[in-house]
Amino acid sequence: MNIIIIGCGKLGSILANELSDAGHNISIIDRDIERLNMLGSGFNGSTIKGIEYDDAILKEAGILASDAILIVTSDENINITVSLIAKKIYKIPRIIARIVNPNRKYIYEQLEIETINPIQLGVDILKDKLV
Amino acid sequence: MNIIIIGCGKLGSILANELSDAGHNISIIDRDIERLNMLGSGFNGSTIKGIEYDDAILKEAGILASDAILIVTSDENINITVSLIAKKIYKIPRIIARIVNPNRKYIYEQLEIETINPIQLGVDILKDKLV
Repeated sequence: MNIIIIGCGKLGSILANELSDAGHNISIIDRDIERLNMLGSGFNGSTIKGIEYDDAILKEAGILASDAILIVTSDENINITVSLIAKKIYKIPRIIARIVNPNRKYIYEQLEIETINPIQLGVDILKDKLV
Repeated sequence: MNIIIIGCGKLGSILANELSDAGHNISIIDRDIERLNMLGSGFNGSTIKGIEYDDAILKEAGILASDAILIVTSDENINITVSLIAKKIYKIPRIIARIVNPNRKYIYEQLEIETINPIQLGVDILKDKLV
């Protein structure tokens, strides 16, 4: 699959490496070159430094031929903006976004975009373990 | 249950509120008073400002009568230190620690301490969704 990852923080960088190792074609975008450089020499995909919702940057990352986009920055507004672009303009078949603030979940629901919330996953698993 | 939570970041604060709402007796420790204050007025447990591995602070949080301790700061060294104290000195029945860097997992394994890694949970769930 051709997969674009938005955001090269902890979540994005691990995803990029694991999905690339699994044989997928990965492009990862981040505005911070230092975060992209931390992917290391083992990463086989493309790194693109730039504003995550910039049209030229998204095209450079191959959005016109992408099968999926994973939007996982820690900035909710960026995640919402890129979700909207991916859904309404580029009609990417699979879009999954990271929720930063659970109170914003309704926005993704309105856009009919799948979400994940790693912190809430951690909370739920910890609570399950305790019982 | 009497539960101590170490670290009042995103994970710790949500845990504190949800476990307190579920009827548990919660004490949460953080060195940063601002993070503790962000718990809000709905939180029914105790907040303790102080160094997370300080013996007097842990006793103030009720470690001598605690059933479980959840160690969830974003600083791996703090998490390891408190895990060690909870296991070897206070012999807390349930200890669960957050792994920050997966390369350190062997340390918790040596201590026979349960761990969670929210970022890796997020990665695994995202990968499952994609397939």
